[in-house]
Amino acid sequence: MMAKIENKAPGKDISDEDMETKFPLVARKPGQARTQFDIAGVAFGGDHIPVMAGPNTVENRDMILRTADAVQKAGADFLRGGAYKPLSFPYRAEKYFELREEGLRYLQDAKDATGLPVITECMDQNTIAGIAEVSDIIQIGTRNMQNYALLTDIGRTKMPIMLKRHYGASLRDWLGSAEYLMIEGAERVILCERGVSVAHTHRSSSRFLLDLQVVPAAQEYSHLPVGTDPSHATFWAPWVESMTLASIAAGADFIMLEVHPDPRNAAVDPLQPISFDEFGALMAKMRSVASAVGRKTG
Amino acid sequence: MMAKIENKAPGKDISDEDMETKFPLVARKPGQARTQFDIAGVAFGGDHIPVMAGPNTVENRDMILRTADAVQKAGADFLRGGAYKPLSFPYRAEKYFELREEGLRYLQDAKDATGLPVITECMDQNTIAGIAEVSDIIQIGTRNMQNYALLTDIGRTKMPIMLKRHYGASLRDWLGSAEYLMIEGAERVILCERGVSVAHTHRSSSRFLLDLQVVPAAQEYSHLPVGTDPSHATFWAPWVESMTLASIAAGADFIMLEVHPDPRNAAVDPLQPISFDEFGALMAKMRSVASAVGRKTG
Amino acid sequence: MMAKIENKAPGKDISDEDMETKFPLVARKPGQARTQFDIAGVAFGGDHIPVMAGPNTVENRDMILRTADAVQKAGADFLRGGAYKPLSFPYRAEKYFELREEGLRYLQDAKDATGLPVITECMDQNTIAGIAEVSDIIQIGTRNMQNYALLTDIGRTKMPIMLKRHYGASLRDWLGSAEYLMIEGAERVILCERGVSVAHTHRSSSRFLLDLQVVPAAQEYSHLPVGTDPSHATFWAPWVESMTLASIAAGADFIMLEVHPDPRNAAVDPLQPISFDEFGALMAKMRSVASAVGRKTG
Amino acid sequence: MMAKIENKAPGKDISDEDMETKFPLVARKPGQARTQFDIAGVAFGGDHIPVMAGPNTVENRDMILRTADAVQKAGADFLRGGAYKPLSFPYRAEKYFELREEGLRYLQDAKDATGLPVITECMDQNTIAGIAEVSDIIQIGTRNMQNYALLTDIGRTKMPIMLKRHYGASLRDWLGSAEYLMIEGAERVILCERGVSVAHTHRSSSRFLLDLQVVPAAQEYSHLPVGTDPSHATFWAPWVESMTLASIAAGADFIMLEVHPDPRNAAVDPLQPISFDEFGALMAKMRSVASAVGRKTG
Repeated sequence: MMAKIENKAPGKDISDEDMETKFPLVARKPGQARTQFDIAGVAFGGDHIPVMAGPNTVENRDMILRTADAVQKAGADFLRGGAYKPLSFPYRAEKYFELREEGLRYLQDAKDATGLPVITECMDQNTIAGIAEVSDIIQIGTRNMQNYALLTDIGRTKMPIMLKRHYGASLRDWLGSAEYLMIEGAERVILCERGVSVAHTHRSSSRFLLDLQVVPAAQEYSHLPVGTDPSHATFWAPWVESMTLASIAAGADFIMLEVHPDPRNAAVDPLQPISFDEFGALMAKMRSVASAVGRKTG
Repeated sequence: MMAKIENKAPGKDISDEDMETKFPLVARKPGQARTQFDIAGVAFGGDHIPVMAGPNTVENRDMILRTADAVQKAGADFLRGGAYKPLSFPYRAEKYFELREEGLRYLQDAKDATGLPVITECMDQNTIAGIAEVSDIIQIGTRNMQNYALLTDIGRTKMPIMLKRHYGASLRDWLGSAEYLMIEGAERVILCERGVSVAHTHRSSSRFLLDLQVVPAAQEYSHLPVGTDPSHATFWAPWVESMTLASIAAGADFIMLEVHPDPRNAAVDPLQPISFDEFGALMAKMRSVASAVGRKTG
Repeated sequence: MMAKIENKAPGKDISDEDMETKFPLVARKPGQARTQFDIAGVAFGGDHIPVMAGPNTVENRDMILRTADAVQKAGADFLRGGAYKPLSFPYRAEKYFELREEGLRYLQDAKDATGLPVITECMDQNTIAGIAEVSDIIQIGTRNMQNYALLTDIGRTKMPIMLKRHYGASLRDWLGSAEYLMIEGAERVILCERGVSVAHTHRSSSRFLLDLQVVPAAQEYSHLPVGTDPSHATFWAPWVESMTLASIAAGADFIMLEVHPDPRNAAVDPLQPISFDEFGALMAKMRSVASAVGRKTG
Repeated sequence: MMAKIENKAPGKDISDEDMETKFPLVARKPGQARTQFDIAGVAFGGDHIPVMAGPNTVENRDMILRTADAVQKAGADFLRGGAYKPLSFPYRAEKYFELREEGLRYLQDAKDATGLPVITECMDQNTIAGIAEVSDIIQIGTRNMQNYALLTDIGRTKMPIMLKRHYGASLRDWLGSAEYLMIEGAERVILCERGVSVAHTHRSSSRFLLDLQVVPAAQEYSHLPVGTDPSHATFWAPWVESMTLASIAAGADFIMLEVHPDPRNAAVDPLQPISFDEFGALMAKMRSVASAVGRKTG
């Protein structure tokens, strides 16, 4: 009584039955085109590859306004920045602070000043409403990918949602979590790969391993846009360029990047963000690779 | 590549001491350029990205000659093909046969007919000499990456060697195995990533996960050329293009691909090789992406 | 700048500093005894090894009453049973139903009838109060181990809490999540290992791998009781006995087991629960192994 | 062991067809008893649980003779000790030396002095004959589990063989490697679990994770004796006792342990071996747990 694998290569773990019964709204039916939609006037799922850039954490009003201005000038489509931040331990040293509602206000200020739409993370059923007022996309982070109560409540807002993949989740379970959003009425759901954990014996010397195979895989099994966040996985700014260009070459539908006015003094993870200048230079290369695969960005 | 920040990020598992004492011949010293060398007249480590293409297994004389001709016309630099094949079980059903010495002769015939240099795998201390007569590069496969007796004996030939990474090996151990080759006098060693294993919960629905972060990582820690084999990891021909283009965008120094005259009837793993036509179309895209990152191929 | 590892074996990833600054309430200080406390009159952390037994899911009133009676007679200390059940996909086929509030009432009925205290899972910030009325221990499941909003709200009840380890979480992060509970005032926190995911290449042919090394490890780094749930990891009833006895020999402070009146017709995962008779026979062996290591159970 | 339910659970990766066609000599046929045989007068596969004890490396003549005497007095059945040692890097600092042929002579001396049979590792096709003269069991190490040329040559000796599982190998592939031995005529093959690698996010703070589920699993799928080596996985002497007793409770057919006259000054991995006194105390506990599960040791 081995698990039957139909219509799929040996070793694949998503069956036709899964697609019909476990995530029918998320699944891409035979012959179905990939879905395209606009979020805050930015087209997702088509030739254009939207870029979301900004700091890990909104540290203060000035830095988020400066960053919004800089990434907009370099060609970003969205400003990212965390007002609420999940941490593995409950003590927040000064440098791990989070500005919460104050952070949301600064994101709103940056949006007002530049016109850039915003994306920020929600991790508590009780903060959804406040975030929904400011953020154009509600981000669900890796640790909450299978927090079904949160998924359900966020799905009910029918807002645009970015669902990050858990670092230890299969494509199958990721698509199952996306179904929790769509079954509540959310339609503009985008999927973001941010690195999976690997055995300590397998390390390429990074924190997580960006799974670029999941880009064509998710695009085969789902009609939703699929992008990547190369900054967090590498944990090392010098490798961000390689992984960003590789993401575009692999077919990513959007890119999320950590950009900071002063990376070495970033409040969190100072080795992974890139500077404004580096972001500008990277955008030029991204345009070049996007063009090589028949798409455009920036 | 962006400016070097400092020597190591927290969480990285290769120290300066490792580079000085564990793999000094393989390690890239501060300021050292990446190594360039020729193998059979093909330049490795520079702007050109050599391509090695051919079947998993040399099935018969005709198919390997036809493949050599086709991949040469499409722009490949080397013909690949297995005469000896490791299998996880000792029984070889008809379709898992290996032609051994006969396979080596057919590779020689294909080389004579086309002039394409050849790469094939060695997995036994007793077959090194025979393989060295035909093959321009001796390939060490994933299962033998830590077979130090084999590494030592192959290193002593001082031939060009491709060292595949074990699917469960860190970059650190991979570079340690390369040191076993160089300490015996081998100088033209190239490193090939072919996919690492991931937890069953993490699957993107592939057999292995091509670790593209290891490309910039290995290039930071070692001066040797670093390439990838996208066919085996995906185990699914439709995703090979994405992973090949992503490899080039990530900075890979060479590409190894499975190409078969009739993929669906391949003796081994029929879902992963691409056809002659698909290879030709892929080469065109590879040229385009290579050009976008300032390199060339084909 | 490699991560410093003090006072620990090479390769260990919990430092003295972690213990002082990241989970000081959970950490076991030098010379500190392991904590002992009572929950519903059952002693945890001492010589006695409490046993929690019952079905995965409360399927109906009759089955939970019969199970409560049977496991009590065989020597169990707690009745387990799920009223709320996390599933990877939002569609609940008939067999994956959950009885929610109705299930809680049946648990209360079983408790009233037998006097056995109860443990059941909470996965939504909005159901904590209802569960706290019935359940003597609130269980936090594997998927919610890093759902910090839920941890915080449950911690504030100051109830006894069982924190299951995420299948992809280190001991360090698990202890960090326990700190989220204790910082809110919860004191009677027990830690339950339930299996970690392993690479598809590493499978011993089970779904998850019960990590028994984490038993002595968690007992070295924390003063809290540490137990295991062998049923879920093996996913195969014939191996449950081995893993239960091994847990006791490894030093587990409590055991959670899936017991069902009719395992082959269980609503969920019919291959993993054991029958009443099997549970009785296993309890006898558990007593024997517990005695061999100077403890007692049942 | 509880009654067999049916052939395979969903998610298991060994099929009936695998057992018939991939490792028929190793597979346990329906109703087949587990195999029992003697090696050097010690019974394997029955009620007695043989113990193999000694240092990681034969450091000098005196230390191996003293160890042989001590472990024999405490009840060990075999002396273990490495004459050839695989290392991940080719440079052997003074402390990583290996005595090679000289080490084999010292093992012979220890055997002559005590009558204890010996087990030592072979990792090169060219050293098989020399090792076979001294060692009563030829050990194949984790890195060479899929070195089929070595397996074949060692299998042809028809000697007793211990096959360690690769830290990244499934049960299915492990049994496939054992088939490579039996197909050449080896009959007395024993299987040794020594820990699998896990994701860096999953660490219980050990180097490898001893997979105790593989004990009942391998005993279900194969008729060969299955044991464990708890020292190497934990890499931490204080946890060796827990994992040894857990192995016996899980049903292990033999135990291999690292014992050293002066653990803190061991040439290799000084944190993992136990002292003579600790070994004596552990043997007493092992006898107690073995008795609790109807077996005996020591």
